[in-house]
Amino acid sequence: MSVIGKVYLIGAGPGAADLITVRGAKLLAKADVVLHDALVEPELLALCPQAKHIAVGKRCGKLSTSQRFINKRLVDAARKYRVVVRLKGGDPMLFGRADEELAALEEAGITYEIVPGITAACAGAASLGRSLTLRGVARSVAFVTHAKANDHHQQSMSELETPNADTLVYYMARVHATAIAKRLINQGRSRFTPVHLLEAISTSNERQWSLTLEELADKDNQFTSQESWQTSDGPLVMMVGDALANRASAQANNRMQDRLVLTNRLRSA
Amino acid sequence: MSVIGKVYLIGAGPGAADLITVRGAKLLAKADVVLHDALVEPELLALCPQAKHIAVGKRCGKLSTSQRFINKRLVDAARKYRVVVRLKGGDPMLFGRADEELAALEEAGITYEIVPGITAACAGAASLGRSLTLRGVARSVAFVTHAKANDHHQQSMSELETPNADTLVYYMARVHATAIAKRLINQGRSRFTPVHLLEAISTSNERQWSLTLEELADKDNQFTSQESWQTSDGPLVMMVGDALANRASAQANNRMQDRLVLTNRLRSA
Repeated sequence: MSVIGKVYLIGAGPGAADLITVRGAKLLAKADVVLHDALVEPELLALCPQAKHIAVGKRCGKLSTSQRFINKRLVDAARKYRVVVRLKGGDPMLFGRADEELAALEEAGITYEIVPGITAACAGAASLGRSLTLRGVARSVAFVTHAKANDHHQQSMSELETPNADTLVYYMARVHATAIAKRLINQGRSRFTPVHLLEAISTSNERQWSLTLEELADKDNQFTSQESWQTSDGPLVMMVGDALANRASAQANNRMQDRLVLTNRLRSA
Repeated sequence: MSVIGKVYLIGAGPGAADLITVRGAKLLAKADVVLHDALVEPELLALCPQAKHIAVGKRCGKLSTSQRFINKRLVDAARKYRVVVRLKGGDPMLFGRADEELAALEEAGITYEIVPGITAACAGAASLGRSLTLRGVARSVAFVTHAKANDHHQQSMSELETPNADTLVYYMARVHATAIAKRLINQGRSRFTPVHLLEAISTSNERQWSLTLEELADKDNQFTSQESWQTSDGPLVMMVGDALANRASAQANNRMQDRLVLTNRLRSA
């Protein structure tokens, strides 16, 4: 079967429809077909009402389309349509298994182009109003995942290495969050290191929990035992590091005030 | 003096005007004034012809506006204009000294909003067609800089720590590239680990050099001694890691072919 189409692997960004790039939005508007992840927000699909939408859901810990099947559908689409968009949450080159899809396209002789997207760590930092790097405090940041997407099981913590970067951002962190906090303390990070858990960043459902490594590691406190973040199922990012502490500013913004209230509540719990 | 404006700290992305977010582009189009870095491409400023443009250049190793003066101009602008955009190359929360600007705004009681941008590492990975993370090969990626922006000098290599993440991306890497390669080999990375140097990513001036750690570390080979990347002055990103190797695909794309040619040329030099 001859190939007529070109595949655009596009990063959808963190969730909000206007946090996709201008290039990505323009390509969506002229797509014939869009194969999208389960994590892609409906408002992003509203940018391409003319296109056929195909959900090829991959979602950590849930039943989902196998990667081989996604690859096959992508190749099939390029044999049938001219403008094929593969829309992936965040940035396609970070924790996105793009490599397997690109290899399948190359093997099938299909031309492709990659359009980067805003990754959750950057959107999370913007939402918090905290830099991932900070002069004199953090010169490096590492993005890590301990989840195995699409494998229906999690790694055991013993398999996990922890990069020694100043700031750490864990993707798909829900299952391992408390274990990671314990490990970081054991490895010598201060118990008072700020931690932010962010869910559904940049969407109307965004939630933030801000606390310390010690509070997160303590399985008996209110936060780890009762807070709803444990049972929610949106994508959760865990951000750790001294660069993410509150600024000692004359005038704190509202979000910061909210966080102080939460932290105080946890401390007194 | 009363405050009338709001400041939008916007990530311009890697360079191409259409790799800014839709939100960023819309805000630029209604800005009264835009304070921008030296690294921001002219085509991005064409998105806001109606606004007053103020260059507050920060550029590694060059004479540039001091951070305190930038902070002051930002505060002054918010006292004079309604929609003030602070346009920063890449993502504002990565190596951007955003924290100092946000602190100044908070102290002056000025409202702000942060719009994330595509960082060079993600744009570089898209350009290379290689994932920063790769199943079974790289579960973590670290972004690092060894340059001190705005300080007119570089750190000595002895001050530098190297995160142990699987993939490493060094920002503002030109001065230290060969020293970093040597250090990574000394620390146990394979001499054959792929390295990509990318300059002016996503712009019409983009250049790529792909080689191995060993080739980069060897000061006597053609690449390190003669190639023009040493004397160029665009922003240079250094990407290192096994995830960035060529894929063993049935059909390599053109870019990959070019890289093989370059690598072979270097090997025979």
